[in-house]
Amino acid sequence: MGFRLGELVERLGGQLEGDPNIEVIGIAPLSDAGASHISFLSNSKFRAQAGQSLAAALIVSANDDATVAESYKGARIVVKNPYVYFARAAQLFEAQTAVIKPAGVHPTAFVDPSAQIDASAHIGPKVTVDAGAVIGAGVIIDAGCYIGLEAQIGEGTHFFANVTFQAKCVIGKRGIIHSGAVIGTDGFGFANEGGVYVRIPQTGRVVIGDDVDIGANTTVDRGALADTIIEDGVKLDNQIQIGHNCVIGAHTAMAGCVGVAGSAKIGKYCTFGGAAMVLGHLTIADNVHISSGSLVSRSIHEPGQYTGFYPLAKNSDWEKSAVIVRNLETMRDKIRSLEKTIKTITKHEES
Amino acid sequence: MGFRLGELVERLGGQLEGDPNIEVIGIAPLSDAGASHISFLSNSKFRAQAGQSLAAALIVSANDDATVAESYKGARIVVKNPYVYFARAAQLFEAQTAVIKPAGVHPTAFVDPSAQIDASAHIGPKVTVDAGAVIGAGVIIDAGCYIGLEAQIGEGTHFFANVTFQAKCVIGKRGIIHSGAVIGTDGFGFANEGGVYVRIPQTGRVVIGDDVDIGANTTVDRGALADTIIEDGVKLDNQIQIGHNCVIGAHTAMAGCVGVAGSAKIGKYCTFGGAAMVLGHLTIADNVHISSGSLVSRSIHEPGQYTGFYPLAKNSDWEKSAVIVRNLETMRDKIRSLEKTIKTITKHEES
Amino acid sequence: MGFRLGELVERLGGQLEGDPNIEVIGIAPLSDAGASHISFLSNSKFRAQAGQSLAAALIVSANDDATVAESYKGARIVVKNPYVYFARAAQLFEAQTAVIKPAGVHPTAFVDPSAQIDASAHIGPKVTVDAGAVIGAGVIIDAGCYIGLEAQIGEGTHFFANVTFQAKCVIGKRGIIHSGAVIGTDGFGFANEGGVYVRIPQTGRVVIGDDVDIGANTTVDRGALADTIIEDGVKLDNQIQIGHNCVIGAHTAMAGCVGVAGSAKIGKYCTFGGAAMVLGHLTIADNVHISSGSLVSRSIHEPGQYTGFYPLAKNSDWEKSAVIVRNLETMRDKIRSLEKTIKTITKHEES
Repeated sequence: MGFRLGELVERLGGQLEGDPNIEVIGIAPLSDAGASHISFLSNSKFRAQAGQSLAAALIVSANDDATVAESYKGARIVVKNPYVYFARAAQLFEAQTAVIKPAGVHPTAFVDPSAQIDASAHIGPKVTVDAGAVIGAGVIIDAGCYIGLEAQIGEGTHFFANVTFQAKCVIGKRGIIHSGAVIGTDGFGFANEGGVYVRIPQTGRVVIGDDVDIGANTTVDRGALADTIIEDGVKLDNQIQIGHNCVIGAHTAMAGCVGVAGSAKIGKYCTFGGAAMVLGHLTIADNVHISSGSLVSRSIHEPGQYTGFYPLAKNSDWEKSAVIVRNLETMRDKIRSLEKTIKTITKHEES
Repeated sequence: MGFRLGELVERLGGQLEGDPNIEVIGIAPLSDAGASHISFLSNSKFRAQAGQSLAAALIVSANDDATVAESYKGARIVVKNPYVYFARAAQLFEAQTAVIKPAGVHPTAFVDPSAQIDASAHIGPKVTVDAGAVIGAGVIIDAGCYIGLEAQIGEGTHFFANVTFQAKCVIGKRGIIHSGAVIGTDGFGFANEGGVYVRIPQTGRVVIGDDVDIGANTTVDRGALADTIIEDGVKLDNQIQIGHNCVIGAHTAMAGCVGVAGSAKIGKYCTFGGAAMVLGHLTIADNVHISSGSLVSRSIHEPGQYTGFYPLAKNSDWEKSAVIVRNLETMRDKIRSLEKTIKTITKHEES
Repeated sequence: MGFRLGELVERLGGQLEGDPNIEVIGIAPLSDAGASHISFLSNSKFRAQAGQSLAAALIVSANDDATVAESYKGARIVVKNPYVYFARAAQLFEAQTAVIKPAGVHPTAFVDPSAQIDASAHIGPKVTVDAGAVIGAGVIIDAGCYIGLEAQIGEGTHFFANVTFQAKCVIGKRGIIHSGAVIGTDGFGFANEGGVYVRIPQTGRVVIGDDVDIGANTTVDRGALADTIIEDGVKLDNQIQIGHNCVIGAHTAMAGCVGVAGSAKIGKYCTFGGAAMVLGHLTIADNVHISSGSLVSRSIHEPGQYTGFYPLAKNSDWEKSAVIVRNLETMRDKIRSLEKTIKTITKHEES
């Protein structure tokens, strides 16, 4: 097990400075790496630490290489983006040690006879696959998942244990859905008749692109009439809620506990910090970044970083500031009154 | 498939202006409806669009009908509340195309011999029904659900895949519980003994009324000694947390990610925006509306709309306002000092 | 069923004032307790109510005993901490009525032949136990749980239905994990390459100590390279998210909907109110208490109570204060300008 440096460079690129036959068995941070590891320098401020690393090899940028090479005597792989290279190398090591899930349907799974399951797919214990579902090549469905009626799962996608993927929903290739996630549940749609809610059937789907990751216990509602759309490369962390008819633009990432209300249209390359919330029917432009804990209550048309949370303080200090916030109008009125008085005084003086 | 307009009016009421034999196969929004659809006008500002609609028929209010009829030449169903009528009509179309789940227990389900399951109920694959549970007529329990000891599920209620419904909990008729929801888990109750928590058994139940919808991955805790109560017609969206011993009044609706801490008593006909939070032991009157992202930290005795979230801004602007919020006391003191100085000046001038 | 007072005192300690042969069948609050119950007085302000209680026996503190005894004529158990004593007594009553889950593996469960399951453990219906997992004595795994590859579950721990416990994760003794919780899912780690995210394999574990409770639908991510750590006695409520590489110190408690971003290190004996959020890579000292709905955006090195949420108001009042908050800089500038003007006036007057 492990890789020769020559193999790594062959697969992932980069300029190797050192012996291609050196073998490394894993990847480790600078502080922990030993003689059988490869490590990486992704932040120039750790150059000195990299110079002292015990790792057999280092992934470095061209920018850092000369300085590091002064003190570091192991092999170096010089690359454009060491952090990305680390991620890719770690994927190679992971693949090497991963337990291979056998192709085929586990005897304790239940698959409706009308479902189409590629021969190379793995359907784990206690899984249910409903009528008409289509499961592509190399798909892995772990224990206890439910795949709904006529759902479609693209090549190489992996559902961890206990995912629920409802009827007619679609996910593309190389996706990952983590345990407890629920995709395609009904959107929250009701007509109000004298205070009593009448359910509006939710007949759209959830359509998810390629290379999308969805975190544990995250929920994505199906559309009301049209579909809810998650575009390519979107990354959703755990415990996120996406309402019906939302569109999440390609390569947007959301941290844990984010909520997006129905019909919000979110651009590409956005980021949302943990527990950020977006109200319904808003439009967010591309390249917008929302800080953690911020409520987005209006559309955002300009890229940039946006924030809105109450600053934390010792409780006693917060109590004082909160009282004033509650009475800011009084404060504003006092200032106006002061301005007026002073104007009078000044005029009086001038006269 | 589809309905003749005459059938729709027979079932749902409304005054038909047009040929009762016109057949429509589905319902669509004004913008998408074609010659085989029925559409609806629920907002007068879209009257002009309705006038141009290609739909075979329109659901309109008496108020809008005359104006629409000037340009729209299809059939019209004139009703009191077009949006409610749309919801009901959509339910009819949904029922027509729904896959009928067969009565009976799927061979891969496990049902304790002491459980009582109505012959018309559907128990899906991989379901577990524990001892003494009682499942009513027409109930649908989808794949992977767990129904606890002596739990009771009323007539016509539907649990989507992978719901957990714990021991002794009760739900009434025509309810819907979405995937991943957990009802009747222990409340968060501990006695603190010198810093160490001692668990307090949670021996109450969750008792849910009729016509209640509960969203995906929502959790409702069982009561500590008494019960947690969800009254008739309550609608809970996804990812909501209801603490032990709460009472949620009839026909109250909560959007996604709301949290209600233990022993809060919430009135009837309230609404809670997404991610609103209610502290424990509070009382909220009927007809209270809480805006998204607002923390309710005190009881509310008057109906109305309540709000409390920090307004979003460009991060650089927020940083400036946040610094001032942190130091509002200083600002208040400066104003007081100014007032004092001016008073002195004014007195001096007057003397 | 039930206990004689003599038995209770024998098991739990306390000074019994009254007949040890009196039998009580359950525990109830002061207001509900009848002649077959024991009740408790944990807050001196209810002394008068305790004096009138119909309970057969009362748990009281030494401090309250004399006053209560003046009017209350039932038996009393005088203890140091009545609320803790109540919790322990309630546990005894609970154990007496609990349905005993039989040792052994349910015939509908799937256990990999290489898993080691103690003969006294209960593995419920539809459970999957993956290869190499180790399940200790007296463990209870309820229906539908998934236990991952080489996971380890300590003596006496109880997983409620539909828990997911991923590969190589570890939990100690006497733990409780509630339904829908997901432990050991991948952390949210990506390297960004020109806007596109490259997944970083998450190869650490989640390591949970003894006496830890984890609530329904709570998620705990596995570490990236190192482990995520939950120390002894930690209590997590429902719908909580703990990011990768966090450390949660012993006997810390978090209420529902809390979120902790990756690599945060939280001290011992802390408490977090509902929906509090902690940003990544922060350090929180021991004995820190965070109020509900507060975002922790910087490390906290001093014990104490910290708060940061926008105070709730009638929506119309909030709108006024929010506008001013958005423009606090203007207000500050006006005050500065006033100060300047007044200084000039004062100087002028003095001259």
